[in-house]
Amino acid sequence: MTAFNDLMAYTRETEALGQVMGRLGWDQETMMPRGAAEQRGDEMAALSGVLHARRTDPRVGDWLEAAQATDPAGEAALRLIRRSFERTTKVPARLAAALAKTTSIAQGKWAEARKAQDVAAFVPVLDEVLKLKREEAAALASGGDLYDALLDDYEPGARAADLEAMFGALRPRLVALREAVLGSAHQPAELTGTYAETIQLELSAKLAAAFGYDFTRGRIDKAVHPFSSGSGSDVRITTRVAEDDPFNCFYSTIHEVGHACYEQGISPSYALTPMGQGVSMGVHESQSRIYENQLGRSRAFTGWLFSQMQEAFGGAGAADADAFYATVNKVKPGYIRTEADEVQYNLHVLLRFDLERDLVSGQLEAADLEEAWNTRFERDFGYPVDKPSNGCLQDVHWSVGLFGYFPTYSLGNVYAGCLNKALRESVLGVDAALASGDATPATAWLKENLQQHGGLRTPRETIRHACGFEPSEAPLLDYLEAKFGAIYKL
Amino acid sequence: MTAFNDLMAYTRETEALGQVMGRLGWDQETMMPRGAAEQRGDEMAALSGVLHARRTDPRVGDWLEAAQATDPAGEAALRLIRRSFERTTKVPARLAAALAKTTSIAQGKWAEARKAQDVAAFVPVLDEVLKLKREEAAALASGGDLYDALLDDYEPGARAADLEAMFGALRPRLVALREAVLGSAHQPAELTGTYAETIQLELSAKLAAAFGYDFTRGRIDKAVHPFSSGSGSDVRITTRVAEDDPFNCFYSTIHEVGHACYEQGISPSYALTPMGQGVSMGVHESQSRIYENQLGRSRAFTGWLFSQMQEAFGGAGAADADAFYATVNKVKPGYIRTEADEVQYNLHVLLRFDLERDLVSGQLEAADLEEAWNTRFERDFGYPVDKPSNGCLQDVHWSVGLFGYFPTYSLGNVYAGCLNKALRESVLGVDAALASGDATPATAWLKENLQQHGGLRTPRETIRHACGFEPSEAPLLDYLEAKFGAIYKL
Repeated sequence: MTAFNDLMAYTRETEALGQVMGRLGWDQETMMPRGAAEQRGDEMAALSGVLHARRTDPRVGDWLEAAQATDPAGEAALRLIRRSFERTTKVPARLAAALAKTTSIAQGKWAEARKAQDVAAFVPVLDEVLKLKREEAAALASGGDLYDALLDDYEPGARAADLEAMFGALRPRLVALREAVLGSAHQPAELTGTYAETIQLELSAKLAAAFGYDFTRGRIDKAVHPFSSGSGSDVRITTRVAEDDPFNCFYSTIHEVGHACYEQGISPSYALTPMGQGVSMGVHESQSRIYENQLGRSRAFTGWLFSQMQEAFGGAGAADADAFYATVNKVKPGYIRTEADEVQYNLHVLLRFDLERDLVSGQLEAADLEEAWNTRFERDFGYPVDKPSNGCLQDVHWSVGLFGYFPTYSLGNVYAGCLNKALRESVLGVDAALASGDATPATAWLKENLQQHGGLRTPRETIRHACGFEPSEAPLLDYLEAKFGAIYKL
Repeated sequence: MTAFNDLMAYTRETEALGQVMGRLGWDQETMMPRGAAEQRGDEMAALSGVLHARRTDPRVGDWLEAAQATDPAGEAALRLIRRSFERTTKVPARLAAALAKTTSIAQGKWAEARKAQDVAAFVPVLDEVLKLKREEAAALASGGDLYDALLDDYEPGARAADLEAMFGALRPRLVALREAVLGSAHQPAELTGTYAETIQLELSAKLAAAFGYDFTRGRIDKAVHPFSSGSGSDVRITTRVAEDDPFNCFYSTIHEVGHACYEQGISPSYALTPMGQGVSMGVHESQSRIYENQLGRSRAFTGWLFSQMQEAFGGAGAADADAFYATVNKVKPGYIRTEADEVQYNLHVLLRFDLERDLVSGQLEAADLEEAWNTRFERDFGYPVDKPSNGCLQDVHWSVGLFGYFPTYSLGNVYAGCLNKALRESVLGVDAALASGDATPATAWLKENLQQHGGLRTPRETIRHACGFEPSEAPLLDYLEAKFGAIYKL
């Protein structure tokens, strides 16, 4: 047992240092004085170097060879440590450094190009990023598919061919639903009114509590981009406020609470082990999206939110609870993924998934990206892109080198659809409780069947274990068609 | 130059990680959710292990042997790195671990004993701490004085014999001044009134700005104990608020601003080098105390504060600016060091200095501490200690193993006295500016002559360089006797 125990003790320290890294990122976005940015860069680079050295330490390889697990948790730990060790040691230090440097430059170029609406100014650096990412993928793939090797970083075990089949079934029905909804004679009203920031933040804390967020092991602050950060007993979230758009604050909060409850819900026995964090981006997104959409944007919960807003603001900007529900779920034409509703969101993601696979394989040149994007967008959404900041320059991801990340958003939505089906079949009274502002029956089921297990199983097994059936896109589609068919009287 | 450059690059990363450690401490006292305490302990232990391994890395010894400096800054860097390397490597890992464990237990025992007013319950663990500290001192002293070896951790180069001579001259004149002040027929009034927290905090930020605190490289938050944390471009402070005692908030803030301005004032070229932090506890305290007392509690500045309080609160609890000045500086009998005024503060410290030298040498047993404390207290203050929490159990320091720390408080006050004398002789119009809420002429002189140099010179040389004369206790005594003589009409 010595090798196993030594490896676990060493990993525990590495995980603890990983938490420190996360805390620095949180601080940077919430508390750090602006003049400290450069020094913080030095601090994070130093800690990042320590983490990389620990993760590639030859002793880890020796321990892995000698270690024997005696239970499923031990086996999972060894599997996850081996995976991390192999992936990290496969990428040469020279390449890792070149990627860090080039993506740092690329982010700056991207921001400038986006501001100037000048795709051509971004193309050369995107091309450099792509070359390096292909090199990284080749190092990781050991002869296998390049895109799969990158995807595996965010969704271990997933394969693009499987996702393609799933998304191929999703896309036509979403395109059709989008057309039907926007062509309906019954269009919900827009929200009216102004909603004071302090009251939005108070209500937002109440929403977090309603969904089971544990404030003794977390906190909510304001930040430009909402995010969740940390694992174990220190999981913090951020939200944002626009006084004319309280749904932005409320649903950002509920979305991040979904991420945070997943982390807070993991069994304390996995704390500071490789199982002590959400198992993949897709499974993480399934939690944020089911909290936000299937639960938070349900007729039952919006009914309660309507009364809460009436009480807090003296009015909720809608005639009654039914109208409020339709307003919360209003589908509007738009260019921007992050602002998209449940119907259109995945169409944005699928577009990126198809384009980035072609970029990685070399079938699509960076120079031809804009045209390919605009053509595809008009095909799925029915109208042309008006400017690059509304088109291929809208997301930061590719400049950061995040190829293989986008599909996990839609996979998360598909998983949320599966979990919602299983939840509704397993637990009675979910809606009755939501109608009184109590998400406990739903979130307790998610904790029991999914969250507590952390990284014990692979991502897909995690979902299958929780649902009791093979995950597919069908439940999400059925849910969306039923929900929006009713709202839009299709 | 390779060895020198390699050592500097390595040290830069270590310093950056040290800053991360400081940030975790700040977070723990200000932002951390209470349920995260245990995990934070694991995080800090892991980072602490990384820092210790880096500081004792044999490569540092090799580089130090081979490195050649080509300028005074390089020489200072080598001197400071050599000092840290030698001290850290001299203490065996077994002893360092025993000290960490025992002092952690001792802090808990101390808190319980203090609450129960039960010195006997604290004596056994204090005895254990002392044994370990003597062992540590012996490892560090290489045959020299044990107490000096511990003192050197906080005040490099200082020797107890020199401090004893200085404090020996301080004590009788302070005892006499205390008696005269408390026996005077002219006693200032106490502050009256209640002062709203939000307004205290606003005015406190205004005071920080008046003393030159740079908010683009720092921030102020509330905490149970005021402190300053961080170096370079991220130096944060905390303050506290009691609605019946606004001076607590204002002078805690100005004190911490003194510490913070020292760190913020260090030349950016020293950032993340061993010179990039305040050079010693004593020199640090000289900055916090001159800001707080010689500048902040001056007649000129309190005149401005009086008008600010009148404006902010609609009243400043005193008849006029002269009465307000006397109230700010009122001397009251009391048992507690941290609540003591300028006249009595050093008497508290000198008591601890004398007792802790005897504890380290073994001349005083832990079991006899209470009696020794109470005897000495009554001799200097004129009345007996009423209970242990007002006596030998009032400070956390000894339970943490901080032997050799106390004298740096008084050394800081002595240094502040010297700096105040030099400042007043060098800069005209200090008081005229303070009277309009502008500390710039004073703080600019301190930055130019002391703060910017960071750790370039030894602590005592730092003060001598700034003052232009050998530091002694005389300026502090002259200042105190003049100031309190006038207020109390002696």
